[in-house]
Amino acid sequence: MSGKAAIVGGGVIGGGWAARFLLNGWDVAVFDPDPQAERKLGEVLENARRSLPGLGDVALPSEGQLRFCASLAEAVDGADWVQESVPERLELKHRVLAELAGHVRADTVIGSSTSGFKPSELQEGQALAGQIVVAHPFNPVYLLPLVEIVGSPANDPAFIEDACARLTALGMKPLHIRAEIDAHIADRLLEAVWREALWLVRDGIATTEEIDDAIRFGFGLRWAQMGLFETYRIAGGEAGMRHFISQFGPCLQWPWTKLMDVPELTDDLIERIAGQSDAQSGTHSIRELERIRDGNLVGMMRALALNDWGAGALQNAHDAARAQAAGLVDHVGALSDPSLPVLTLTRAVPLDWIDYNGHMTEARYLDAFAQATDRLMRMVGCDDSYIAEGGSFFTVETHIRHLDEVRAGAPITVHTRVLEGAGKKMHLWHEMQSDGRLLATGEHMLLHVDLATRRASPPAPQVAGALERLAAAHAALPLPEGAGRGVGAPR
Amino acid sequence: MSGKAAIVGGGVIGGGWAARFLLNGWDVAVFDPDPQAERKLGEVLENARRSLPGLGDVALPSEGQLRFCASLAEAVDGADWVQESVPERLELKHRVLAELAGHVRADTVIGSSTSGFKPSELQEGQALAGQIVVAHPFNPVYLLPLVEIVGSPANDPAFIEDACARLTALGMKPLHIRAEIDAHIADRLLEAVWREALWLVRDGIATTEEIDDAIRFGFGLRWAQMGLFETYRIAGGEAGMRHFISQFGPCLQWPWTKLMDVPELTDDLIERIAGQSDAQSGTHSIRELERIRDGNLVGMMRALALNDWGAGALQNAHDAARAQAAGLVDHVGALSDPSLPVLTLTRAVPLDWIDYNGHMTEARYLDAFAQATDRLMRMVGCDDSYIAEGGSFFTVETHIRHLDEVRAGAPITVHTRVLEGAGKKMHLWHEMQSDGRLLATGEHMLLHVDLATRRASPPAPQVAGALERLAAAHAALPLPEGAGRGVGAPR
Repeated sequence: MSGKAAIVGGGVIGGGWAARFLLNGWDVAVFDPDPQAERKLGEVLENARRSLPGLGDVALPSEGQLRFCASLAEAVDGADWVQESVPERLELKHRVLAELAGHVRADTVIGSSTSGFKPSELQEGQALAGQIVVAHPFNPVYLLPLVEIVGSPANDPAFIEDACARLTALGMKPLHIRAEIDAHIADRLLEAVWREALWLVRDGIATTEEIDDAIRFGFGLRWAQMGLFETYRIAGGEAGMRHFISQFGPCLQWPWTKLMDVPELTDDLIERIAGQSDAQSGTHSIRELERIRDGNLVGMMRALALNDWGAGALQNAHDAARAQAAGLVDHVGALSDPSLPVLTLTRAVPLDWIDYNGHMTEARYLDAFAQATDRLMRMVGCDDSYIAEGGSFFTVETHIRHLDEVRAGAPITVHTRVLEGAGKKMHLWHEMQSDGRLLATGEHMLLHVDLATRRASPPAPQVAGALERLAAAHAALPLPEGAGRGVGAPR
Repeated sequence: MSGKAAIVGGGVIGGGWAARFLLNGWDVAVFDPDPQAERKLGEVLENARRSLPGLGDVALPSEGQLRFCASLAEAVDGADWVQESVPERLELKHRVLAELAGHVRADTVIGSSTSGFKPSELQEGQALAGQIVVAHPFNPVYLLPLVEIVGSPANDPAFIEDACARLTALGMKPLHIRAEIDAHIADRLLEAVWREALWLVRDGIATTEEIDDAIRFGFGLRWAQMGLFETYRIAGGEAGMRHFISQFGPCLQWPWTKLMDVPELTDDLIERIAGQSDAQSGTHSIRELERIRDGNLVGMMRALALNDWGAGALQNAHDAARAQAAGLVDHVGALSDPSLPVLTLTRAVPLDWIDYNGHMTEARYLDAFAQATDRLMRMVGCDDSYIAEGGSFFTVETHIRHLDEVRAGAPITVHTRVLEGAGKKMHLWHEMQSDGRLLATGEHMLLHVDLATRRASPPAPQVAGALERLAAAHAALPLPEGAGRGVGAPR
């Protein structure tokens, strides 16, 4: 499903909408009188092109055509969807919406990005009232899936359903909010936190950084995958959601916040919450929910570790602090016996390395071997600062034999031999074990490269020297069984 | 750094602490009069053993010893850290803390998991007042890093610093809160959201599931990696945080929440927030922050996609809906020309596939080839339902040649040939291209297995038949250059 979208107002939000439509194959026409609009939207689009296409595992369609228009009428001509993202002033929004009459088809959806206004406020006095809905997205619009969809009695339910289907086809999560309310749902929750946070800063309790850390190292991670109620359902444990909510009652009267207008926790409200929670999460037992939550947390924190950010950066620092105690070394010179295969990895199999066969998935064998290669590179002096100066090794060839399975949580080690370390070449042999079982072997040819030219080049003398010394020390070991083998060759 | 921890109260929170200590090599003694305590703690520990060891990239030390004790005195004897997690009643906490006198050393940290009480409330009338601090963790304690540390004037600053260092060595993020306040920081924010959410349910605006979805498909993802202020700093864009906060002023007076006690947004408060935000995030430009944010969001959503959960499940459904339009097929019978190599993957390189060399990292080449293999398996009938019935293919051998580099966002395709498909064997040849450039070849030997015995077994007839037909159709193609080659073999 693609079509033509008109973007009215091309700032961060409008630009994000434009990018979401374009990268999903829609043609996009933009109207924004700001002379900087084209530059600003270009910047949003550049970010979107970098991040959205690879988000999924299937290629997006070819990008649509982007056009900037001199008039609103020109931009919306023939549009299947008009998205209004002008500043949050009702009279301005009314003026823009009124101008659409006579220029759009009867089936064109007119979405407003408004954070605060109710659809009936937007529709008031509008000829096209039945086509106007709140479609409130979240920044960055090209990545975050949520769109709050709010209609009024002026909208045909089928019209709203169709609008939601179009957003789903853009990879979004339309959340149809049945009741009109100032600021819809998400911004009410955000606003509550924002006010409480302002009090904390104003009263000198915490800085902005401390408040952000209190969020992103704790409940923020929980909320990226389960919300408030599903999280509390788990906290309630086997006693159940009814029991948990009833217990929560007294706390609501405690002065834990500046914001003290508290709903009365009647039996009816408890029953409503518990019943809704059953409908939402009841297909999973608490134990299952715990494991789903833990798997999500591990996966997300490991994703953050790759970017060395937040909870992931903390984990990386923790790993670095423990590496020596775990038997890993940073320099060839620190090896107790350089003539033996080198310990280059010692870790447990993480939850996100498991596949549908219930064991460590094949690509993660290479991930583990690549981590082992990185350790060996560091040991011969090809470390972060060396790489920053423009030298590195690229793998050109790999041969893996999968000899045994391994499950989540199991310990694995990799020991590494340098089969050849001369000139530009680094030829490695990794053996992966778990509790004495040989799981896999990895044979890898790497070439030293100049990162500026991306071509093979000799390593710096200290790297070449360390590699040669290690290769010489390993030369006395017998050639490993399987080295040099091709796929399917007889043993 | 390890030692001995005493856990007083072994429920979900105490059990989580026990697991965090044990898996980081500490010996743990537990006191909990609940006859179910050992079973309950065992369940928490089982979850922790499944998820924590693989969180980092370096092996944890050997697990410490776990002991259940009949008395508080026995449990805390010789402890370096005592963690109190008894129910949230001040007189009970006072009684437990008083009992510690005479049984712990003068340098033992006594942490309380209290959500609400201030340290000076806990310390009141206690002989060991100077050793008692709030150490408030977040569930699941074995995974979530945040611990709010709050002391009072009764605590020596060096004592608190030492307590924080011990938590850091457990992989945690101790957040030292300088001012005593009911509910510390995080729970005040949570409480604000909780109250607003209760109003939304009570007033019939939204269900628990809709509120959870409004969180986890939107701002929850943002908050897992940046908090409130850093996110708004980005939203403020080039105009800066001062400008953004000043603009926010009027909104605070709008009725966007039931919770209306609002701090006055004075120049002084604006200046304080802006200054703190500069100190927190000022080393990155807005553009850099946007890209960090986007990289984190992509990584986390892709982690969730692996678990088919939340925003990741949405993405998977989106991918599945687009597969056919992208040229992928589900059955050999749907191929327009079975004699040609089969399109088995078409996607863009995601941000989390890039390494320190600025290109797609080697393990992700195998990840892409594994996705291609999965598609081919599905095409010959080894799909989800077949696997659920106990048959699958395991890769036993892989040979990859890395022929060219590729960057984030670039389109890649894989075309696949069946070199052999007979009996238990499936011998595949993958070629990966980007815009006409050959990036890599992958040669893979897979064996069909019985998932119950984990041993090689013949595939079901319909799978064997489809595979044989495809192998026969591909037999007329010339043998690909590089097939059967070993690492480092001459061309």
